Amino acid sequence: MDTLHFSQHARPLPEGFVAALQEHFADRCSVAESVRAHHGRDESPYSPMLPDVVVYALTIDEVVWVARYCHAHHVALIPYGAGSSLEGHLLAVQGGISLDLSGMNRILNVHAEDFTATVQAGVTRKQLNESLRDTGLFFPIDPGADASLGGMAATRASGTNAVRYGTMRENVMSLKVVTADGRVIETANRARKSSSGYDLTHLFVGSEGTLGIIVEVTVRLYPQPEAVSAAICNFSDLDSAVKSVIEIIQMGIPVARVEFMDTGAVRATNQYSHLTLRESPLLLFEFHGSPASVREQAESVQGITRDHGGQDFQWAEHPEDRNRLWTARHNAYFAGLQLRPGCRSSTTDVCVPISRLAECVGDTAAELDQASFPYTIVGHVGDGNFHVLMLLDPDNPAEWTESEQLNQRLVERAIAMQGTCTGEHGVGLHKQAFMRAEHGQDGLDVMAAIKAALDPHDILNPGKMLPPPASAA
Amino acid sequence: MDTLHFSQHARPLPEGFVAALQEHFADRCSVAESVRAHHGRDESPYSPMLPDVVVYALTIDEVVWVARYCHAHHVALIPYGAGSSLEGHLLAVQGGISLDLSGMNRILNVHAEDFTATVQAGVTRKQLNESLRDTGLFFPIDPGADASLGGMAATRASGTNAVRYGTMRENVMSLKVVTADGRVIETANRARKSSSGYDLTHLFVGSEGTLGIIVEVTVRLYPQPEAVSAAICNFSDLDSAVKSVIEIIQMGIPVARVEFMDTGAVRATNQYSHLTLRESPLLLFEFHGSPASVREQAESVQGITRDHGGQDFQWAEHPEDRNRLWTARHNAYFAGLQLRPGCRSSTTDVCVPISRLAECVGDTAAELDQASFPYTIVGHVGDGNFHVLMLLDPDNPAEWTESEQLNQRLVERAIAMQGTCTGEHGVGLHKQAFMRAEHGQDGLDVMAAIKAALDPHDILNPGKMLPPPASAA
Repeated sequence: MDTLHFSQHARPLPEGFVAALQEHFADRCSVAESVRAHHGRDESPYSPMLPDVVVYALTIDEVVWVARYCHAHHVALIPYGAGSSLEGHLLAVQGGISLDLSGMNRILNVHAEDFTATVQAGVTRKQLNESLRDTGLFFPIDPGADASLGGMAATRASGTNAVRYGTMRENVMSLKVVTADGRVIETANRARKSSSGYDLTHLFVGSEGTLGIIVEVTVRLYPQPEAVSAAICNFSDLDSAVKSVIEIIQMGIPVARVEFMDTGAVRATNQYSHLTLRESPLLLFEFHGSPASVREQAESVQGITRDHGGQDFQWAEHPEDRNRLWTARHNAYFAGLQLRPGCRSSTTDVCVPISRLAECVGDTAAELDQASFPYTIVGHVGDGNFHVLMLLDPDNPAEWTESEQLNQRLVERAIAMQGTCTGEHGVGLHKQAFMRAEHGQDGLDVMAAIKAALDPHDILNPGKMLPPPASAA
Repeated sequence: MDTLHFSQHARPLPEGFVAALQEHFADRCSVAESVRAHHGRDESPYSPMLPDVVVYALTIDEVVWVARYCHAHHVALIPYGAGSSLEGHLLAVQGGISLDLSGMNRILNVHAEDFTATVQAGVTRKQLNESLRDTGLFFPIDPGADASLGGMAATRASGTNAVRYGTMRENVMSLKVVTADGRVIETANRARKSSSGYDLTHLFVGSEGTLGIIVEVTVRLYPQPEAVSAAICNFSDLDSAVKSVIEIIQMGIPVARVEFMDTGAVRATNQYSHLTLRESPLLLFEFHGSPASVREQAESVQGITRDHGGQDFQWAEHPEDRNRLWTARHNAYFAGLQLRPGCRSSTTDVCVPISRLAECVGDTAAELDQASFPYTIVGHVGDGNFHVLMLLDPDNPAEWTESEQLNQRLVERAIAMQGTCTGEHGVGLHKQAFMRAEHGQDGLDVMAAIKAALDPHDILNPGKMLPPPASAA
């Protein structure tokens, strides 16, 4: 059972449209129900919405062919990577082609001296890091899923390392993109900085497949830290935890990760990962650097947290202890689901200035405590970004309505605090309704003008991100 | 005498155009020759090209009024900040209005806990840092000139701190922009990260006044480092210096600044700033952090430079010594000019992947050694960006022709190395001819489509950055 629904308005396919595709792509073109069902869903709470046909591309020329074909026939075209979107990006709300790029999974080059790698869009983050193992370098962006680099670029993804290393926004150096009408452009070169021309790289990063099809991604790499240590610290309340983090950043301590878990998330993690963490609000830190620097960072952080009432500051210097902690953190989503067997989840993603984070989480938790379903909260504190995992009965529509209302009030709260409806998951279908409040009609009109200029027939992932014009809404 | 010339193709002003401006702006509207001459030039080697009229705006409403007026009458409109462009951005190649924003110079807010400041576009970088003095925070981007934040955003500027802190690309969080037709948009909010909508911030950063008029800038701030130290190290050749820097970055040492000066630049600096630096290729380092971390960084760097043949590694821990060194580095431009009394200069700005930097500088120096004029080279080594200061006789057109040819070969070399024609100065007039080679016709066409969508009457800084269509070139 899925429990959020969206109406499909499929465009009729021209006669013979699929036959020509099948001739060109043979067995890499499928209309099988199971294949279409797999491509018409993602990790969002939406019911599936199937494309008319799935095409598996292996080369840029094939992507160009499909783009030109869809452009000529005004057929919708949805780029598909790992299928791990949380916001409904992959649902075929206007039917058309799901263009699966997962077979474009070659690492094209690694320039270790320049700290860059260029990969095809279907390469996943774990695959990239695996291939970098012997170079002494790594790629830090770590969304929960083993997403494709193309998809991560398209949603401007991040994860637990963003406080130190930034998001895909800061770490994509250049993209190769196929435009709606089948031209191939490189958005930048490999120079670390440039003042040459409009910043097309950042225009396509976060464009959710609506402006072009990302086929290659050049990212920044970082030296694997010489030393790493982790630490846990409990707090009686979130406010003290956030005040600690603000002071840590003000001291210039280059903390690599700092994650918040509420009591519910800690409890769920203890159960799921067989840990014995104290069940109170908690910060989980990671420090990167030389051995001396890592020690100094941890000591400074311990002093600051102590000043703010932090308790039980525990280091985890051994890799196995550290990995166990971070694996537990990465599994917080699954751990949460176990709190209510048989449930499905809906996840929020607001991000606010850090000075407002404690207030935003506190007000939200107070509301959630009155809700008819359980929840947990985890957050990327250094970024002001947090997620509420709402655990919902798939057979109880009232809970889903209630969860949507709670999310709406949460987003309104975040926007009033100069924040955003989505820190790292993207807009897709689920956040569309908030775009006008967040960007204003004039901001949306500028975005729509860009969309119309680059995709005049609205074939690229149509119906996503930008809400329909106000008159049609 | 100025020695590079560009043809002006002024659009005729509609009748009564200036009179209406004068009525609206009174003494903040001028057609005086001296005022227009001041606004029709910049720090580039071009001869001035005067606007028809200069307007001094003090409020966003006034900027909106001017934009609407120019939009309605198809009159060119050039935003003007500090006048420190090096590439001819401010020349009125199609006449029209120079809109002086230097009076919009208020610091609107500083959110110390969020590490952000919002300023009006006319605030200069030194003014901002002056106002931050008591907050423990600073704004790191330091182009040579005391440029306005609006102008720095418009040219995607950087400086000596970019290797650690990034450029304006990484440090502008949000902009308030007046569009060509007088709408006011905010490109983002104050959340540290967001996956909501097209990245309008980065679209306007580096757009050189051609897509909108930046009226407010929200930037990231950083904690003032607890400890700072500088160091100098001489090398027998650039190659060893660059290899050292690559290894330093690979070791994860968070060097804050690393600047290269060639022998000529060192000699000029010694003369101009009364220093006694050894006259050989030299790296100038700065380290930021805790006292222990700064000491460790400097020791590690010393070890690495020694392995690469670096000599005379000297620390400068006292603020006065450090400031003297960095003042000398910032004055390298003026020092260079003194090498040839009465000269004017033309400055190059390529940026290449760091693995190609030594080769790019070496090949360039070999050519320059055959030139009929003197030169110096300084570089932001960590970024792969360097500047050749060519010292030219203003009365000798042959030297200017020769310098343009040298720059052209240098840019071709940089682009062939996957680099860019401009690392931090922008395109303006001087780099336009290289845009097609760097971005390809399809890339330029995408940029032109965006320009047409946002500025359909081509009123915003027309004739800059994007070259004329191939057929017209």
